Amino acid sequence: MAETDQAAPPTDQLATMDLTETSLNHAFSDRVLIRSIVGRPDGGAGLAGKRVRAGGWVKTGREQGKGTFAFLELNDGSCPANLQVIVDAGVAVLNKLVATGTCVVVDGILKVPPEGAKQRIELRVENVVHIGEVDPAKYPIPKTKLTLEFLRDHLHLRSRTNTIAAIARIRNALAFATHSFFQEHHFLYVHTPIITTSDCEGAGEMFQVTTLINEAEKLEKELKENPPPSEDDVEGAKKLVTEKGEVVKQLKAAKASKEDINASVAELKNAKEKLSKLEERFKLKPGIPKKDGKIDYTQDFFARQAFLTVSGQLQVETYACALSNVYTFGPTFRAEHSHTSRHLAEFWMVEPEIAFADLKDDMNCAEAYVKYLCKWLLEKCLDDMEFMAKNYDKSCIDRLRMVADTPFVRISYTEAVDILEKAVKDGKKFENGVEWGIDLASEHERYLTEVKFQKPVIVYNYPKGIKAFYMRLNDDLKTVAAMDVLVPKVGELIGGSQREERYEVIRERILEMGLPLEPYEWYLDLRRYGTVKHCGFGLGFERMILFATGIDNIRDVIPFPRYPGRADL
Amino acid sequence: MAETDQAAPPTDQLATMDLTETSLNHAFSDRVLIRSIVGRPDGGAGLAGKRVRAGGWVKTGREQGKGTFAFLELNDGSCPANLQVIVDAGVAVLNKLVATGTCVVVDGILKVPPEGAKQRIELRVENVVHIGEVDPAKYPIPKTKLTLEFLRDHLHLRSRTNTIAAIARIRNALAFATHSFFQEHHFLYVHTPIITTSDCEGAGEMFQVTTLINEAEKLEKELKENPPPSEDDVEGAKKLVTEKGEVVKQLKAAKASKEDINASVAELKNAKEKLSKLEERFKLKPGIPKKDGKIDYTQDFFARQAFLTVSGQLQVETYACALSNVYTFGPTFRAEHSHTSRHLAEFWMVEPEIAFADLKDDMNCAEAYVKYLCKWLLEKCLDDMEFMAKNYDKSCIDRLRMVADTPFVRISYTEAVDILEKAVKDGKKFENGVEWGIDLASEHERYLTEVKFQKPVIVYNYPKGIKAFYMRLNDDLKTVAAMDVLVPKVGELIGGSQREERYEVIRERILEMGLPLEPYEWYLDLRRYGTVKHCGFGLGFERMILFATGIDNIRDVIPFPRYPGRADL
Repeated sequence: MAETDQAAPPTDQLATMDLTETSLNHAFSDRVLIRSIVGRPDGGAGLAGKRVRAGGWVKTGREQGKGTFAFLELNDGSCPANLQVIVDAGVAVLNKLVATGTCVVVDGILKVPPEGAKQRIELRVENVVHIGEVDPAKYPIPKTKLTLEFLRDHLHLRSRTNTIAAIARIRNALAFATHSFFQEHHFLYVHTPIITTSDCEGAGEMFQVTTLINEAEKLEKELKENPPPSEDDVEGAKKLVTEKGEVVKQLKAAKASKEDINASVAELKNAKEKLSKLEERFKLKPGIPKKDGKIDYTQDFFARQAFLTVSGQLQVETYACALSNVYTFGPTFRAEHSHTSRHLAEFWMVEPEIAFADLKDDMNCAEAYVKYLCKWLLEKCLDDMEFMAKNYDKSCIDRLRMVADTPFVRISYTEAVDILEKAVKDGKKFENGVEWGIDLASEHERYLTEVKFQKPVIVYNYPKGIKAFYMRLNDDLKTVAAMDVLVPKVGELIGGSQREERYEVIRERILEMGLPLEPYEWYLDLRRYGTVKHCGFGLGFERMILFATGIDNIRDVIPFPRYPGRADL
Repeated sequence: MAETDQAAPPTDQLATMDLTETSLNHAFSDRVLIRSIVGRPDGGAGLAGKRVRAGGWVKTGREQGKGTFAFLELNDGSCPANLQVIVDAGVAVLNKLVATGTCVVVDGILKVPPEGAKQRIELRVENVVHIGEVDPAKYPIPKTKLTLEFLRDHLHLRSRTNTIAAIARIRNALAFATHSFFQEHHFLYVHTPIITTSDCEGAGEMFQVTTLINEAEKLEKELKENPPPSEDDVEGAKKLVTEKGEVVKQLKAAKASKEDINASVAELKNAKEKLSKLEERFKLKPGIPKKDGKIDYTQDFFARQAFLTVSGQLQVETYACALSNVYTFGPTFRAEHSHTSRHLAEFWMVEPEIAFADLKDDMNCAEAYVKYLCKWLLEKCLDDMEFMAKNYDKSCIDRLRMVADTPFVRISYTEAVDILEKAVKDGKKFENGVEWGIDLASEHERYLTEVKFQKPVIVYNYPKGIKAFYMRLNDDLKTVAAMDVLVPKVGELIGGSQREERYEVIRERILEMGLPLEPYEWYLDLRRYGTVKHCGFGLGFERMILFATGIDNIRDVIPFPRYPGRADL
């Protein structure tokens, strides 16, 4: 797969756009967005004769007519399509304009190009307002075909490529679609914390957040510049205090003048202060503070050990159990040393939580949400989707259409295992064995959604042994009310469950799993006081983008990927 | 200030709501949202006769008519108003229902209450579907009047109070308004990184993100359970390798049987492997790995020192310089030991960035954005705003109206200092002295916006000495193109600037401020290649909520406040 310079043609996504002059959108700038010219249903033809200022970066440029004029394909990121710009040699030094990556702002008149041209409008330049030059010999990404791997080493410039720009627009669309969906259904957006002291899922995979190392380094530096007192220094200071004390005593005994006594008292006070300071500094020890052989977290910023969140679910439940319908959409973190194309150390999750709702409601919500996202992209991002279809994944648009239009299959985990066992019997080879009780592997999930049903599948009621303590125990006492949404291309897109709302049952489950009760007391309070049935799910936002775009590596669908050994910028 | 049980009356915010049956919104549950009953323009009266299921938490409940029936005020968080519910003793055990905080789901018929009642609709219960009981003696927040300070110690339950619920709805509205504003203006939402290795603003105030401490503790534990070899162990193993080598040599020299030689070679191989393992474990040292006396960050998760971001600006600029109009809206962090009512260690920032735009454009965008937020609250959250006006800040609605309708005053920093100096001359007392070159203190900012102009004020063109290196140097070489938006109640709400787009100038500014160039090379690349004028600003999201609600302490306007010594949940 390669980065290409081929931009999709403008689509009718802006069909509702006003065709009068007011449709020229400036977005708080004196230049008009290229999208509001070439993104019109008429490809911009109706704007012929208009004088506009346009700006963008040169995708391709070439001098023509023996250097008498230049063609520039200008892109400002507002849409995948470029604006064709023609500059005469009399207006500017042409060879300063044509290098890929050059930033150009121009004033000119929109004209309909000669018959047979690809474009339906072009800009004839009257005046060049700004040139941000590029030296093609030095520009890190001058070529039009660059691998996504190469671009990962140039995070700060890769959004200038058609591919990363299209992904950015698709990501933006999915984020706003997410908010729109939940707001339309009266869910409240809740900002769950990033820094957490609930190390509920085991601290091993969590990043620690601390100021202890910085503080220790500051102290170490300070002690080097300004060494702490020796034991002798302290002893000397003690001796001085004794001596000065003696002097005061003697003067008082000798009924000396008030002046003399006061002076000696002042000296004693000074000596005492000096001693106390020395004693304090004497106690300072370089390194991270310890107590009883362990790190003393009472001296850390939050007075206890703190981590980056792995999920906002438990916290957002506190809001669901008061405001009924809520969701969180924010960054989450895993300190796993995974070097796969499916894992990031920092990624975004969408986590709705619904009170007065059970697993069926949860599945209904998940299905409606995923369909909404697919429809949104088809309606508002078709030009970018066409770019992805042309360059990365022929089937990505069909996949969106299929998911938007097809009722999701719903099968129990037990039915899923039956299907997989039958497949094995019929000769299907899996790397991982299949039997009731296993966690479904990615290959199993993809078989169900891609081969068996060829549509989205929701698997529900999983064995309790492979699921978290907070999932609601079913009446069979063997399974919990969990569900996963599986889709073609990525497998599991969503994982969710009805939460255990019965105090005695959840308490038992925590103990059964060998977890301590104390850190969960606040969570148990939600069941102690005014408990309510509720459910929720989590959607891995980057997985949704992989699903939509057909991109293979998750590092390419987040602006600034973080993974073992890398956190550029 | 106190938590009260007084809910604002339903407003006409849902005036556009469909009055037919379809307007009953279930939000993926079998119960109808209370908002879609009492939030209607007719207060729900038009729904009389309808059979509905409703659920929520009891705000106040009381038995009446000598225990023959009970009144419950039920709230599900979907709006500030409660639904009045009447339960007959024949239907349920009444004293299980009436405690504040009890969760109740009921089926019943909506009826118009008797003349003179406050409500315009009430629910006559036919069947109680669920009771989540509360023991009032144990419930941590049973009282209707609780201080905000008290509630901070009960983060997991405080969203059940009217005040925190109203703030949550206002916060949600402001977040969605933010996305709506920028999407309407064709800005793309970009997720800037939370974990960053750009310690651009000085690591002192940044939280460190690390796995080194965990790894060290794991190793320490492992070494305790399984002590490392001693020097003697290693020497012994070395000796064994020599001996086994000798045996092989001798057998070979003696032309022993192939079998014997092979056996001895195998023994030698074993001995070598054992030695190599011992040597490796011998090297293991407990504690954080060091190299040349410093912490060896190459062994940390990202192979270098990593921090929590203090701003997404520098990173989002890379997207602005490709996609023109972008914004980020995410959590940011400061490890400052501030115990004030205005500082959090974790807070949310909105940071737009606009290419092809200068300081004037920046101010236009900031003003339009703030006005949009104010109008949004007046249109969509008036019932919650009325609650805040009644209970916390009488003037908060007027303030929103004033800011929405009044053109912002724009004055240069120099003019601002002139005004302040004149005020001092006229007898105004400030704690901080006023002269050209100082950074304006909060008292100065509030004087300008609250006393002098009594409307929002934008101050622009600040002395370069008090501003960041990336702000564009003005032609006077003394000031930079920075701007702050000041509003009544909070002072500075927004800080922004035009960015320095000239390579030579910004390079000089970095050096002038004593900063190293190397960490900024990627940032300089944006100026080296296809540079463009651009600008942006940051709005502290919690400050906006303080401004809107009149709440005094920032810890009460974020769901899970983090500050020195506290990061509950």
